[in-house]
Amino acid sequence: MRRFMDSHQLAHAPAQELHNGAFTAHAETPARARDILAAIGTAEPATDHGLAPIAAVHSDAYLSFLQTAHARWRAAGRPGDVGGYVWPVTRRRPLALDRIDALVGQFSFDASTPIAAGTWDGVYWSAQTALTALDAVLAGDRAAFALCRPPGHHAGADYLGGYCYLNNAAIAAEAATAAGRRTAILDVDYHHGNGTQDIFYERGDVFFASLHADPRTDYPFYWGHADERGAGAGEGATLNIPLPHGTGIAAYLAALDSALAALAAFAPDLLVVSFGADTYVGDPIAHLALETADFTPLAARIAGLGIPTLVVMEGGYAVDALGLNVAAFLAGF
Amino acid sequence: MRRFMDSHQLAHAPAQELHNGAFTAHAETPARARDILAAIGTAEPATDHGLAPIAAVHSDAYLSFLQTAHARWRAAGRPGDVGGYVWPVTRRRPLALDRIDALVGQFSFDASTPIAAGTWDGVYWSAQTALTALDAVLAGDRAAFALCRPPGHHAGADYLGGYCYLNNAAIAAEAATAAGRRTAILDVDYHHGNGTQDIFYERGDVFFASLHADPRTDYPFYWGHADERGAGAGEGATLNIPLPHGTGIAAYLAALDSALAALAAFAPDLLVVSFGADTYVGDPIAHLALETADFTPLAARIAGLGIPTLVVMEGGYAVDALGLNVAAFLAGF
Repeated sequence: MRRFMDSHQLAHAPAQELHNGAFTAHAETPARARDILAAIGTAEPATDHGLAPIAAVHSDAYLSFLQTAHARWRAAGRPGDVGGYVWPVTRRRPLALDRIDALVGQFSFDASTPIAAGTWDGVYWSAQTALTALDAVLAGDRAAFALCRPPGHHAGADYLGGYCYLNNAAIAAEAATAAGRRTAILDVDYHHGNGTQDIFYERGDVFFASLHADPRTDYPFYWGHADERGAGAGEGATLNIPLPHGTGIAAYLAALDSALAALAAFAPDLLVVSFGADTYVGDPIAHLALETADFTPLAARIAGLGIPTLVVMEGGYAVDALGLNVAAFLAGF
Repeated sequence: MRRFMDSHQLAHAPAQELHNGAFTAHAETPARARDILAAIGTAEPATDHGLAPIAAVHSDAYLSFLQTAHARWRAAGRPGDVGGYVWPVTRRRPLALDRIDALVGQFSFDASTPIAAGTWDGVYWSAQTALTALDAVLAGDRAAFALCRPPGHHAGADYLGGYCYLNNAAIAAEAATAAGRRTAILDVDYHHGNGTQDIFYERGDVFFASLHADPRTDYPFYWGHADERGAGAGEGATLNIPLPHGTGIAAYLAALDSALAALAAFAPDLLVVSFGADTYVGDPIAHLALETADFTPLAARIAGLGIPTLVVMEGGYAVDALGLNVAAFLAGF
């Protein structure tokens, strides 16, 4: 199974984030990628697919904002990394805004996803890593792993949040669809992939299924409830399975089986897996109870579908165990 | 002209706020009310009108949140005052959420409006002060002043933001409407009164006009643009006049005259003025250029309408000059 990661991805390194009412060290560190790399051995670098496949998912205004926000923040005399404080809650409509704070709110849904000097470089290459690994699957590999970092599944077409800026899984799924593959996305991160869901919510040509902590108690709160099933042409093409705190492997696999049955009924010929290792019992910001050894049968169950699969890295914050958990997951393929 | 303020209002005293990417001392301090009181002499206390007139404007879920948020925050082991970090940007729908962070985001639109231990007491009595001053106008006084603090015009029916929690002007306007008065609201704070606008946006029975700094560059950014004119039954009953930085009294009065002409055409028999002194040239967080002496002719122009008027205090953060600016404004009546 080929593995991909690009050293440019490490350029994204914010210093701090707003968490539970105070600034703390940023949890989504370059060390995460290094830890995974140490556990899985080597990874091939990404090839540059350009901006077009990214712009197929994200709006031009949002991409322009991402590329210029840090420079504008510094030009406004602000300290540290870009951080927002005000959001348009009731309506989102195109507005000609001319202040960095206004733009941050317009293109964000939380205040804990800072834009640092190297963010654009890091997120651009994280997306390229997903596209490069997709190439391997499109060329006939049964599975490939994109060590994307920063992650992507919380980012919508025109907003960042949850440590995510470009939606790597959605960009890959869109590129796979453009290449003629009937594509499904399975999100097994601890948190709901609200950005991915939002991007495909009204489309019937890409199926999205997610297992995640119940949003009544867990981030991102406002998405991922069981009654969200898609809309319009996408009605029924979204499946959300919220899980209670403390869920262990037996209950997890039972929920996974119902998601896999729904996926199989969609009959995809390419699968994108948004994989987060924060379902691990020792994750510092999560509350499920999977052990390291559990990740192998979990992945094997997914591999059992027999669908060519791109695995895209999402969350996982127990840095010491992160690499072992990822390696255990990949061993299932 | 009778003036009202209640000492309970001083119970609201958050320690810090998120501002331009860092925590700073909270700008909307109890000292603001004391400074105004020192300049205008005495003020009568509020009488308790109960929760009903407040609940006529704000949702039950939001009021329950406001009353319990600080206790829930402390129960969750959080430091300091309640502060949010995540917001539902694309849809607001009723959700059964069970975490203080989720609730803060659901009922907020910014991250700089903390809920402290005394907040409910302070905001409840700030609203009662507006209702008590309204009584004087309903009883026949030509004008009355409600020294509301914390202010209210950024708070919507179910969200806080911009140092505002309960919308004192909207609560008074709704109570005046319930008392049979045809009511208009004129907002002459530096910032757009987005909450007031939102509450009455689809209603034709209350006219809302606002002069404010251009939201393309100034908070609250996403509301107050000139093309926002109301909707549905309220189409045409909202008037927004954005002003460029540096606007002085001559240009201000010209804009005011067009707002007053629109107000007069609505033919109200009661006027609520949301008055902010942050149009003052020396205000630390604003960029208009009114001098202290300018506030008297400005107010006189409004008084010239000959409509019984309730003046409700909103913003103004140049604490040393604040009292004098308010006194100058009231002298115009």
